[in-house]
Amino acid sequence: MDILYDCWLAYGKDGSMKWTEKYLRKLCILCSGRVIGSAAKELETAYRRLAGKDPERISEPFSGGCFILRINEGLCAGGYRISVSDDSIVVEGGDENGVLYGVFRFLVLASGGYSPESLNITEKPFFSLRMIDQWDNADGSVERGYSGASIFYEKDRPVSDMKRLTDYARLLSSVGINAICINNVNVHKTETYFITEKFLPDIAKIADAFSDYGIKLYLSVNFAAPMEIDGLPTADPLDEGVINWWKCRAENIYIHIPDFGGFLVKADSENRPGPYSYGRDHAEGANMLAAALKPFGGNVIWRCFVYNCHVDWRDRHTDRAMAAYSNFKPLDGKFADNVYLQIKNGPMDFQIREAVSPLFGAMSDTNCLCEFQITQEYTGQQIDLCYLVPMWKECLDFDTYHSGKGSLVSRNVLGAAGVSNVGSDLCWTGDPLAGANLYGYGRLVFDPGLSAEQIAEEWVRAAVTADNEAAGTICRMLLSSREIYESYTSPLGVGWMVTPHYHYGVDVDGYEYSPWGTYHYSDRNGMGADRTKATGTGYTAQYASHNEEMYEDLSTCPEELLLFFHHLPYTYMLKSGKTLIQHIYDSHFEGSEKAEELLLQWRSLKEKLPAEIYSEAENRFEKQLLNSRQWRDVINTYFFRKSGIDDIHGRKIFR
Amino acid sequence: MDILYDCWLAYGKDGSMKWTEKYLRKLCILCSGRVIGSAAKELETAYRRLAGKDPERISEPFSGGCFILRINEGLCAGGYRISVSDDSIVVEGGDENGVLYGVFRFLVLASGGYSPESLNITEKPFFSLRMIDQWDNADGSVERGYSGASIFYEKDRPVSDMKRLTDYARLLSSVGINAICINNVNVHKTETYFITEKFLPDIAKIADAFSDYGIKLYLSVNFAAPMEIDGLPTADPLDEGVINWWKCRAENIYIHIPDFGGFLVKADSENRPGPYSYGRDHAEGANMLAAALKPFGGNVIWRCFVYNCHVDWRDRHTDRAMAAYSNFKPLDGKFADNVYLQIKNGPMDFQIREAVSPLFGAMSDTNCLCEFQITQEYTGQQIDLCYLVPMWKECLDFDTYHSGKGSLVSRNVLGAAGVSNVGSDLCWTGDPLAGANLYGYGRLVFDPGLSAEQIAEEWVRAAVTADNEAAGTICRMLLSSREIYESYTSPLGVGWMVTPHYHYGVDVDGYEYSPWGTYHYSDRNGMGADRTKATGTGYTAQYASHNEEMYEDLSTCPEELLLFFHHLPYTYMLKSGKTLIQHIYDSHFEGSEKAEELLLQWRSLKEKLPAEIYSEAENRFEKQLLNSRQWRDVINTYFFRKSGIDDIHGRKIFR
Repeated sequence: MDILYDCWLAYGKDGSMKWTEKYLRKLCILCSGRVIGSAAKELETAYRRLAGKDPERISEPFSGGCFILRINEGLCAGGYRISVSDDSIVVEGGDENGVLYGVFRFLVLASGGYSPESLNITEKPFFSLRMIDQWDNADGSVERGYSGASIFYEKDRPVSDMKRLTDYARLLSSVGINAICINNVNVHKTETYFITEKFLPDIAKIADAFSDYGIKLYLSVNFAAPMEIDGLPTADPLDEGVINWWKCRAENIYIHIPDFGGFLVKADSENRPGPYSYGRDHAEGANMLAAALKPFGGNVIWRCFVYNCHVDWRDRHTDRAMAAYSNFKPLDGKFADNVYLQIKNGPMDFQIREAVSPLFGAMSDTNCLCEFQITQEYTGQQIDLCYLVPMWKECLDFDTYHSGKGSLVSRNVLGAAGVSNVGSDLCWTGDPLAGANLYGYGRLVFDPGLSAEQIAEEWVRAAVTADNEAAGTICRMLLSSREIYESYTSPLGVGWMVTPHYHYGVDVDGYEYSPWGTYHYSDRNGMGADRTKATGTGYTAQYASHNEEMYEDLSTCPEELLLFFHHLPYTYMLKSGKTLIQHIYDSHFEGSEKAEELLLQWRSLKEKLPAEIYSEAENRFEKQLLNSRQWRDVINTYFFRKSGIDDIHGRKIFR
Repeated sequence: MDILYDCWLAYGKDGSMKWTEKYLRKLCILCSGRVIGSAAKELETAYRRLAGKDPERISEPFSGGCFILRINEGLCAGGYRISVSDDSIVVEGGDENGVLYGVFRFLVLASGGYSPESLNITEKPFFSLRMIDQWDNADGSVERGYSGASIFYEKDRPVSDMKRLTDYARLLSSVGINAICINNVNVHKTETYFITEKFLPDIAKIADAFSDYGIKLYLSVNFAAPMEIDGLPTADPLDEGVINWWKCRAENIYIHIPDFGGFLVKADSENRPGPYSYGRDHAEGANMLAAALKPFGGNVIWRCFVYNCHVDWRDRHTDRAMAAYSNFKPLDGKFADNVYLQIKNGPMDFQIREAVSPLFGAMSDTNCLCEFQITQEYTGQQIDLCYLVPMWKECLDFDTYHSGKGSLVSRNVLGAAGVSNVGSDLCWTGDPLAGANLYGYGRLVFDPGLSAEQIAEEWVRAAVTADNEAAGTICRMLLSSREIYESYTSPLGVGWMVTPHYHYGVDVDGYEYSPWGTYHYSDRNGMGADRTKATGTGYTAQYASHNEEMYEDLSTCPEELLLFFHHLPYTYMLKSGKTLIQHIYDSHFEGSEKAEELLLQWRSLKEKLPAEIYSEAENRFEKQLLNSRQWRDVINTYFFRKSGIDDIHGRKIFR
């Protein structure tokens, strides 16, 4: 056992599961199948860890303590019920996946020291599609990866050793993930060939490993693949040759991978090819692929992250935030029923604070998914602590008002996709505490009704420590971390201000004169992006009228999004009674102080924590403190130099 | 013949050398040696190009026209005399190199269409050491290279085919270069082993190729090599083991390369190891290496580019410009006589406009070299036209006043080193017009008395066209190019404002909050680095008092360096009667207009120029125009946003 590698599957790490031995020693498996096999194997693993020997397989329940698995057709797909009694522990699932999820749930909570009584649980998945997207490249790199190299590829080949991937499948299925796309949405030259004979046998082995855990495999495809692979003269989705080409590809893929999930497509975005190149729209592009997959039950996941990345910064009317809605809203109802539009939580790009995408709820006749970024690209890169579940929950709980009050995002989408934060690091996620985001993503999309607090507590107890006091401290650290990170980085929803390309660390003007459409428009008088209908880009009109009015009006616009929607003078008075500039100074001084508190809180736990986790994270808290101070001083100096307004508290702002 | 590849050795490209055939057909070589052999070969090459056949070798002068080479011991080393008469052309040299230089000089000028009469020339080299530094890496990359891959290395090995290197040696010796350091001053892992048996046989072949052209080979070495190569416990220059290690290395190198030039060292700079790591000073470090080379006649070239690259931007007292002087001035007189300090022209890093380094003239008891950057790192990257000879000449002609009036930099140094702009591109220099800088560097350090105009004309006529009108236009373009580039980039000597790392394109704040010590300190009131004694960092005191006073006083400080020395309000009135901010707007509008004129001027020459040169350069002039417009608009918007002051001419400044 390695506490870093095992993550939240570190059964018996601190004696808290002792009581389960009585049940785990006799396994009574009353159902069968490959996924059931994995569930049984997991129980065996747990028992071996606890007792140092194999459990006994029995064919009928034993009243002196046993662990029973069975299918209960009264439960829905993926649903399960755990029943704990003196005699036995019974895990019933609506299907094989349900049984597996129930087993994991039991083991994780028990390992976290939760009481036997509290483990009588019945749950069912809220979303049918619960997906993970790997941004892994065939060369072994991971785009926006902060946890080492890819665990899927090295040297332009899929890996051949399935051990690590099997353990990854365990981690993912333990929180209910049932789909994974194993290559980067930016499909480069080598990956374009993943759908050919050159790679399919190897990819089928990976698919097989994930299928054992009820996870379907998807591939990102290159829309121009017919031209690149076979030299077709076009990739026009309405061209007969192209249509047939994809049909043949699909048939062939399903020969290798009978339960293949389908394609993920980033088209016409950031210089990727797509239907626009041929005068076709995204529905025509997606539906062509969907038709090829349809006979085999496959899906097309089509990303809505489509915008012009060659904007002229001089043009203050073009607004990148409007792009997804502008591109896709006119196509509502035109997509085939096995197409899912994957919509990022916000309209920009995974910033620490953005408005919720106006596309949610606006596509009532289209299957939609919500895309979250588990990997912390703009949110601390697994150096700075940033527990993202509260942010994702805000998105899922956001009321779009598109069908009247109560039109929550969670009711407007059929599932979610999360960009993985995993790599070859021993602890999987660079910062071991970033494991909370991977765990949390899975749990939240299984049940969006869960609180961020509950998820944090489950994870901390299973993955770090079941010690009540220490776990409580770490939970509080996690739960405050997003606001801390936000407070010392870009203010009030304006976003960016990061080092170009790297996206870690401060560079206020880094993207200000770039073609990326990401501007804060700070001058000597004020700052912010005016997205109002009245005087700005008109972005607010993409929301249902209730929200449009809320954002349009300064008095009702949520203050944390003030600079996302409005351009305001530094002297603008916030509800707190502070001016905007004073808020910037205050939040940056305080944010950096709180980053220091995180480090001190962590250090206070040293004796109570596994040494490996302690030191990996301590090292990162130290870096976070330096990062927060650089952000604080650069932001404060930058805005002092522009505004000329002093901090009313006279703290040190460098000239 | 290929006009791009041949550069200024494109003999007979347009018929202008026809008259020389009469002489070249009979070669009378009255001296001998390997370099003389190269000179004779060059004459043969020229004749073959002109006449399509080999010249005849004769042993005695022939009165009906012949070409005579001989040594004349009355001339100094490297000096030559060319005498043109009806009977013969005689090239006499003070030594073999002198003969070679004379031959090249004759061929280049004749090929440029200069008249026979004007070729009666006597010249001698002003500096004894005329060096080229390659920043080539063993992996085939070139640091700050804009002309393709390295011509010296590929895949961690020296190249084995000497053809390209021999042609490079021809180009270099044709302008009087007599030393070359063939690897990057940043000595990485592989290059550390260049001084071992693993690489010396291959490097000896390269040395041999350059020796044929009178060019001595140097290697950049890693000061920590004794530790890295042989696991010595230290690289302390006073340690006996270390001293012996370098002695053995030197002995071994000279077995392979009997005329080896010596070592080039970047120590204690930008995270490179050096004597400071062992509590020793630079003299102790350099002298130890010098002692190892001394018995064989080798030199140590020691770079003075030593500064703290981990400065805190918050600290307005530390001044990177002061670093070289602070580090080296106290050591004057302590260096061995085969040590040469290599001092960059300016105190910062090859900006388009800097003050001249205060170290020149301050080291009266030390051998010094001047370092110029031929490769256009900060000066347009061989996209934007920037003829650098006028800038280098300003440096060489700068009066340091250290020994009274007339203490020119050129009299304070014994030679120069130029960072090469050459790579595997067919035309060697990316932009074919960047060839003027390579040619110009060689010519200028051979004779600093030459004018930038004369050098430009020689090069244009030999390398591009001998057509008077076209050559005149191109010369005017070259001669205006530095001021044009300066006018649309960073104003009045303040420097930087470039995209970090790449160093091309505008990013005003790109380095403003970095640890690199390169700040413009712009706020809503003004900008510039205050380096005065009175109120600033005190940098001015590093100059002799005449210059100190000149820079210290706003009324005598040269205006093009105003922001290098002073922090001034935007409303500061320049001698032109313009405010500082208006100067910024004007120069940026005008600079971009002039970039457009360059493109139009170039296009006007289309019919008169070789097509290959025309289109390579046209493509770059188009990019330059875009670059200049982005600089113009970003700079103008940046300073408008900060100052709030409108352009008095009401031109378009984006908000």
